[in-house]
Amino acid sequence: MKKIIIQLICPDQKGIIAQLTSILYQSDNNILSIEQHVDQENSKFYIRIFAENNDTQFPENELAELSDELEGKLYLFDPDKKINVAILGTTEEEPIYDLLIKNKSDELNCNFPIIISNHNELSSIAKQFDISFIHINDNKNLLQTLKQQKIELIILARYMQIIPKEIVKLYNNNIINIHHGFLPAFKGARPYHQAYNKGVKIIGATAHYVTNELDDGPIIAQNVIHINHKNSIKNIIQLGREIERNVLYKAVKSHLEYKIIVHNNKTIIFD
Amino acid sequence: MKKIIIQLICPDQKGIIAQLTSILYQSDNNILSIEQHVDQENSKFYIRIFAENNDTQFPENELAELSDELEGKLYLFDPDKKINVAILGTTEEEPIYDLLIKNKSDELNCNFPIIISNHNELSSIAKQFDISFIHINDNKNLLQTLKQQKIELIILARYMQIIPKEIVKLYNNNIINIHHGFLPAFKGARPYHQAYNKGVKIIGATAHYVTNELDDGPIIAQNVIHINHKNSIKNIIQLGREIERNVLYKAVKSHLEYKIIVHNNKTIIFD
Amino acid sequence: MKKIIIQLICPDQKGIIAQLTSILYQSDNNILSIEQHVDQENSKFYIRIFAENNDTQFPENELAELSDELEGKLYLFDPDKKINVAILGTTEEEPIYDLLIKNKSDELNCNFPIIISNHNELSSIAKQFDISFIHINDNKNLLQTLKQQKIELIILARYMQIIPKEIVKLYNNNIINIHHGFLPAFKGARPYHQAYNKGVKIIGATAHYVTNELDDGPIIAQNVIHINHKNSIKNIIQLGREIERNVLYKAVKSHLEYKIIVHNNKTIIFD
Amino acid sequence: MKKIIIQLICPDQKGIIAQLTSILYQSDNNILSIEQHVDQENSKFYIRIFAENNDTQFPENELAELSDELEGKLYLFDPDKKINVAILGTTEEEPIYDLLIKNKSDELNCNFPIIISNHNELSSIAKQFDISFIHINDNKNLLQTLKQQKIELIILARYMQIIPKEIVKLYNNNIINIHHGFLPAFKGARPYHQAYNKGVKIIGATAHYVTNELDDGPIIAQNVIHINHKNSIKNIIQLGREIERNVLYKAVKSHLEYKIIVHNNKTIIFD
Repeated sequence: MKKIIIQLICPDQKGIIAQLTSILYQSDNNILSIEQHVDQENSKFYIRIFAENNDTQFPENELAELSDELEGKLYLFDPDKKINVAILGTTEEEPIYDLLIKNKSDELNCNFPIIISNHNELSSIAKQFDISFIHINDNKNLLQTLKQQKIELIILARYMQIIPKEIVKLYNNNIINIHHGFLPAFKGARPYHQAYNKGVKIIGATAHYVTNELDDGPIIAQNVIHINHKNSIKNIIQLGREIERNVLYKAVKSHLEYKIIVHNNKTIIFD
Repeated sequence: MKKIIIQLICPDQKGIIAQLTSILYQSDNNILSIEQHVDQENSKFYIRIFAENNDTQFPENELAELSDELEGKLYLFDPDKKINVAILGTTEEEPIYDLLIKNKSDELNCNFPIIISNHNELSSIAKQFDISFIHINDNKNLLQTLKQQKIELIILARYMQIIPKEIVKLYNNNIINIHHGFLPAFKGARPYHQAYNKGVKIIGATAHYVTNELDDGPIIAQNVIHINHKNSIKNIIQLGREIERNVLYKAVKSHLEYKIIVHNNKTIIFD
Repeated sequence: MKKIIIQLICPDQKGIIAQLTSILYQSDNNILSIEQHVDQENSKFYIRIFAENNDTQFPENELAELSDELEGKLYLFDPDKKINVAILGTTEEEPIYDLLIKNKSDELNCNFPIIISNHNELSSIAKQFDISFIHINDNKNLLQTLKQQKIELIILARYMQIIPKEIVKLYNNNIINIHHGFLPAFKGARPYHQAYNKGVKIIGATAHYVTNELDDGPIIAQNVIHINHKNSIKNIIQLGREIERNVLYKAVKSHLEYKIIVHNNKTIIFD
Repeated sequence: MKKIIIQLICPDQKGIIAQLTSILYQSDNNILSIEQHVDQENSKFYIRIFAENNDTQFPENELAELSDELEGKLYLFDPDKKINVAILGTTEEEPIYDLLIKNKSDELNCNFPIIISNHNELSSIAKQFDISFIHINDNKNLLQTLKQQKIELIILARYMQIIPKEIVKLYNNNIINIHHGFLPAFKGARPYHQAYNKGVKIIGATAHYVTNELDDGPIIAQNVIHINHKNSIKNIIQLGREIERNVLYKAVKSHLEYKIIVHNNKTIIFD
């Protein structure tokens, strides 16, 4: 069985679903799941279709024609293809362990060929999971490394360096950062310390796509945990790790399953 | 604008969505939302479509014909019609207050003409919200009362009596019970006491459709709250009230928005 | 049995608990619960003791002397005394309903003699629960009203007016506000709209003591709920109501049970 | 600084705290934290004190004498001593990874000298973290192995074998099992399948001390996650892993910090 994932964004109008699904039906494709969303305010229509066929041709041309008629943007993805994903980190190990463990148990459909860091602490994890570790002094050679490894998705797993604008542009909506704070509160450095000093009763973590604005790109996933006066900064950092890795994993998983559509700095995430 | 909600259950097969949505498109109906589910194990297909049209005829016949071809069951609902809902209780007030408050602020699309009880405590709430209070000594006159009031949905808001089989049959999938325990654990009487004695660290509440099996019908909604050794039975009862009313409200809301399909003692709840 | 709650704040030092509890033991008082906290960073000690005695004198003088020796601040409360609490609101009903319902079922140990508002919508709730409704045009007569009613705690249940500085000073740590946002994010007006526009995946509510800084006083309780792209602003407002009332209720309950100690714009909440 | 943790269980009576803390004060010990609980129903008193001294003798004899007078049971623990912990598993990797990662980052105060299994899958984890892997065919040599390694705590991380009664007795309240169901619902085999078939909307995991009754010992920690009709069994197993490892880690951490007191098949967990 050949599988395909279709994403379409277009102005809202009558008959989109009927026309799309008729093309699939007539070409003998079976719909496994369909999810749509209408943004009433902006009159925008979003759809994701997961379809499969048994040996037949996939109607790419008909879909492209329909998309043009609807003044839409069409994206087609092959869910069975594993893309190459680079992990960039500094010293924090837990979110990286989690990605590699989930990958080992086939919960993440990708390859993790490299861990990149400007420190050396993470080389032991790379060794444990038998993947390459690349130490970089600065971001100068970063782009070259990403190209050599044919990287399609970059994960910033507590990477403490600013990504060059050139890379942000090239990897638009393909760089996921985990910020250890509940955005938009506590942007920037040491968010747990900020939260502790403010005396909040809940801390959070946020996974988002990276834009050139610090900690401000489209939010993909967030989670929180209750704290109280008994929790020291050290405690908060430990508790926070649980939600950081969980939020990062969820965001990466949604991305790899092509469940995310980004529009106007917000995400639509089909599940 | 005339609105309609369509539910269809049928054996899974190719082209269901294309055919359904084409009928709607050709009759100038606009799809506001579509949600479907395939039960792979049993090869069953479930769909809910929310559509509207501007003055045109709704294609009931064409849909019924298609449903027959697909060997399905078709249900059509008018989301703008308010149905009559009876609340049955004993002495517990909070879940009833919540339903009436949500109704007052237009969050529940129904009428609550009566509270029925075999005790008198709830008459004060009925008075506060200016609805009828009917005291019944036993369940003998219950059916007659429900018929007189043209009741289409029955809510058991901590009602401590067994509903007669005749009524359960007549109101199949139209009686919602709130059980103050995390089903299937802690069925029957005094579930919070059972939970306390067992030393669980989480208590729950469950809203479900009523069948003739005690506390065993299709589950609609569940929620939980963490407890610890410091919580006395009295505490647990107070904490439990928060989740009972929340779970009951969510279940009733899903029911009134025709988001629930029941099949084989399980619920599919589109949101 | 005569009951008492003791709160003591003092510089951290050896022997505080031994000396405190010895005074209670020697005067034949029984400790029902004891909770303490050491703020290591600032070397501050906080303790709350719940004690009871059977007919004996309570050792107020000895405790005061000890507190002086320790350079501490001592607070004594009578948990059996019901204080008068004023509710100030605008049009939002749910958090007010909740407080009155919890009070009716004896979960909040206080009197609610009045609802004060600059609108008229809330008069119907006041009538339902048979308490006074006072319409005020501005905050000029507010203080006088509070004094007349012997109010000791003010609850701002979505009250959209700034409280005069004079009242904030007089009711220091005795005014609780519910803000329908996850502070410190989304301060000020229309926090749900701010959250919606930002595309966050979680919304929150915060109960805090009122200071002269808008939405910035010591946080007492916070809670959150997950949202997604499907939730409209209207939806978010409805979902938010659940956490607003829950957070406000929890904060008021903690206050009324003398479980909160405020220090340096943060709260210590014993449970 | 020498540290000590004191646990005392005794019949409830006046003056326990005063007497205990006076002994510590007079011997120049400083109390870092104190937590107590009174079980009103059974008139039992429980206390945990964390104290430290600077070079002085710890008053073990005085405490033992007091405990005798109070007809209590006294336990003293050294929080700085690392105990040896054995992990027993079958094929499930995630809860084991989590324990080893948390230990690596110093969040768990213990040694993990061995992984024991009746399968071979877990040998790769043992290798990654450079600890011994012991394959056992049956439970016959288990006790001997535990003794050789001087094991004080046994963790059953999805270990699918019954532990011999002799070992259960010897390691009373020192064997922690993770059950991938919300106990007391779904005891025994394949709890996620049981939950799926029942159509529950929440799944859970439970960490508990092992007794000779299957899945029925004192509960230490529980957590849950919401599911819906879209979640397949495979999904549920993946989601469940998140709460299993979290619950097991929390239980082990509480145990290693001597925060748990077991009494009458229930746990008191101080935090």
